[in-house]
Amino acid sequence: MAEVTKVVLAESEIPEAWYNIQPDLPSPLPPVLHPGTHQPIGPDDLAPLFPMALIGQEVSQDRYIDIPGAVLDIYKMWRPTPLYRALRLEKALDTPARIYFKYEGVSPVGSHKPNTAVPQVYYNAQEGTKRLTTETGAGQWGSALAFACAQFGIECEVWQVAISFQQKPYRRTLMEIFGATVHSSPSDLTNAGRTIRAQDPESPGSLGIAISEAVEAAAGADDTKYSLGSVLNHVLMHQTVIGEEAVKQMASIGEQPDLLVGCTGGGSNFGGLSFPFLREKMAGKMSPVIRCVEPTASPSLTKGVYAYDFGDAVGMAPMVKMHTLGHDFVPDPIHAGGLRYHGMAPLVSHLKELGLVEAEAIGQVECFERAVQFTRAEGIIPAPEPSHAIASTVREALKAKASGEEKVILTALCGHGHFDMGAYRSFLDGKLEDYEYPEEAVRSAMEKIPAVIG
Amino acid sequence: MAEVTKVVLAESEIPEAWYNIQPDLPSPLPPVLHPGTHQPIGPDDLAPLFPMALIGQEVSQDRYIDIPGAVLDIYKMWRPTPLYRALRLEKALDTPARIYFKYEGVSPVGSHKPNTAVPQVYYNAQEGTKRLTTETGAGQWGSALAFACAQFGIECEVWQVAISFQQKPYRRTLMEIFGATVHSSPSDLTNAGRTIRAQDPESPGSLGIAISEAVEAAAGADDTKYSLGSVLNHVLMHQTVIGEEAVKQMASIGEQPDLLVGCTGGGSNFGGLSFPFLREKMAGKMSPVIRCVEPTASPSLTKGVYAYDFGDAVGMAPMVKMHTLGHDFVPDPIHAGGLRYHGMAPLVSHLKELGLVEAEAIGQVECFERAVQFTRAEGIIPAPEPSHAIASTVREALKAKASGEEKVILTALCGHGHFDMGAYRSFLDGKLEDYEYPEEAVRSAMEKIPAVIG
Repeated sequence: MAEVTKVVLAESEIPEAWYNIQPDLPSPLPPVLHPGTHQPIGPDDLAPLFPMALIGQEVSQDRYIDIPGAVLDIYKMWRPTPLYRALRLEKALDTPARIYFKYEGVSPVGSHKPNTAVPQVYYNAQEGTKRLTTETGAGQWGSALAFACAQFGIECEVWQVAISFQQKPYRRTLMEIFGATVHSSPSDLTNAGRTIRAQDPESPGSLGIAISEAVEAAAGADDTKYSLGSVLNHVLMHQTVIGEEAVKQMASIGEQPDLLVGCTGGGSNFGGLSFPFLREKMAGKMSPVIRCVEPTASPSLTKGVYAYDFGDAVGMAPMVKMHTLGHDFVPDPIHAGGLRYHGMAPLVSHLKELGLVEAEAIGQVECFERAVQFTRAEGIIPAPEPSHAIASTVREALKAKASGEEKVILTALCGHGHFDMGAYRSFLDGKLEDYEYPEEAVRSAMEKIPAVIG
Repeated sequence: MAEVTKVVLAESEIPEAWYNIQPDLPSPLPPVLHPGTHQPIGPDDLAPLFPMALIGQEVSQDRYIDIPGAVLDIYKMWRPTPLYRALRLEKALDTPARIYFKYEGVSPVGSHKPNTAVPQVYYNAQEGTKRLTTETGAGQWGSALAFACAQFGIECEVWQVAISFQQKPYRRTLMEIFGATVHSSPSDLTNAGRTIRAQDPESPGSLGIAISEAVEAAAGADDTKYSLGSVLNHVLMHQTVIGEEAVKQMASIGEQPDLLVGCTGGGSNFGGLSFPFLREKMAGKMSPVIRCVEPTASPSLTKGVYAYDFGDAVGMAPMVKMHTLGHDFVPDPIHAGGLRYHGMAPLVSHLKELGLVEAEAIGQVECFERAVQFTRAEGIIPAPEPSHAIASTVREALKAKASGEEKVILTALCGHGHFDMGAYRSFLDGKLEDYEYPEEAVRSAMEKIPAVIG
């Protein structure tokens, strides 16, 4: 096989439909429950927060949903994204493994997030929404939504987790360049924020708290809706453009992955890459092992419990069955801000329970070591989030070196680290520490999770 | 004509040769002079600083020089780069002009600089160089050389202009991730640096000073050579891959530019885009106006004098005939660090004198206003340097709106602004000021320039 550096598709090969994995699941997803009644919720319960088109997509049993032309037009600003062969990393590792990475950092804000931000804003614009609220951790999601809102002329208001707001001031600047308004969360602008601040004025915040604030702000205004950057079914579905392109790209060079590796925070990047491959696997066309990688400091899949829990911190958001560390989980301030959510996408959690995907946790020091090694070889600086997938990939490549196996590994490089130089600075200065989520915290988390029949 | 969002070439369409404009010049370039004797210098004078292959390219009269396979292999990591139609900016401006931009921000370090860093390091590696020294302003060049050195396993030592070292700490981090060593310039490591610091301990530095330091460090060590990121003929030649691709891309959609606009600091990005178009123009195949845009604070082409001057601050580097503000020019601390050099590439200066290119100066506030407008429309955040070209493009697009002319404008978006968030922060906070290079400074600069027969 000729060695390729990158596989680039023509603009005409951008997928024209998203892949919805729900009809292909061996067993259906447990229902979403109302946070107050603990009963299954219907479309009307979600209508204050989301446009009907997205509510429909959330529960759709259609295998494919057409991507609107206006969304495709914007996707064309950066899609199709390149699939790279990491030839230089392979050489540095002296491994017989063939390593490929699908690179989403070419998007306007440098991550996979606009893949869902654009359709979410599009459907909102179609249904008359004037303002969107959201939460953001590291700021990748917030900047993606700000970009998409600028495209459709919709106001964007972002609650950013306080620790990231402080650690990553340049992400805030980025959101503001796109015209968004950014608040540090917990803020004094919502009841949820004020409550948390009364308990802990120095709270570093969490995605759960920021979600509570953004949801509250949206629920209280007529022309305002709320937008979530991960976790939900429709979000993961929008991200399948990544995997659909990668399936084509791998096929075009005659390769099939033995292992797929993606990092998981809320699960959208992982789902986006892996679901189309999982479809191929369930259809018997290939047989990759599919692996989630998460930080040891926020290990929902490897140490959390699979149970009904709230999506937010204060219990305003619907309850979903997922792997969770407890809805009031406040993570250690690791640098992978996008991987600090207390729960996991119900779809990814369900697939884990069904044994269709596996999970691994890695500490941030190893991740940064591998990210620097990757950068010196491949030239692209990974964001701290995908450095987890890279670290797992390198572990596998070194195993392949020991065994001599020509393993084909495909990983998701879901974003660049241009706005994470502070984290790299800490790493280079030897100031980075690993955090281990303690076993006793699992028991404590279980106690915080409401008992629900499900 | 069908509206395209971006024009992407196949990997096989990366140019296989650089275009050397020298044999096509209506009159030859004035010779380079020795800084001490003021006599024309030969290859031996340059041998302590550069490998023979590059010295040969500097004076070559061959129209095309083949790009080595090892360089093409690395170019494939990001080339060919996309040509975009700025459909959304056109709409925002309500202009009949058609605006295209060639985007070099997809390179590993986010600018056009690796186009020359890679071949420079390649030729050095071929000739046994173990360490390269260089200067950098904003850090775009330093990070490009650090990236290229990592590819070939060569040590990289960078003197960064002090004001940028302070204002843009993340560029330093970027260089260090690639394995480079970075010093704030003026430093205590060289005679040049110590002399400047003795005169002004708080010196903000300048590219000229940093060049003096890097040249001194290279000249004093056997296995060490020096690398320059702009100004020289071979550097501009390496950058012609930009223009060669753009010529193909414009032709593939049946467009010819009426106006080409590029920002000029040392001239390499401008030369890279424009020289292949200038070749077509001199051959009578098209007739674009070709325009340099520079900051009002560092206006070498619009206010400088065309004279022999030193390439560095202290008179160690060879003398070239160029538009210059005087070799000891210390610019105001504007944010476009890449546009603060005291002189201009001799090739660009010569073309300006011949009337083949024109020049315009724009203040940084207007540039940032247009950069923000551009970002909200096109999603890509320009570096402060190309925001000058964007501002000129917008001026033209608005003129076209007034006149109704369907003008075709092609501009060079030579890099993204991901490492320039501090500058954008200042702009958003209303803290940015314009600097005007004073008329009396021109007279003062002329007095500093040594009288040379040439």
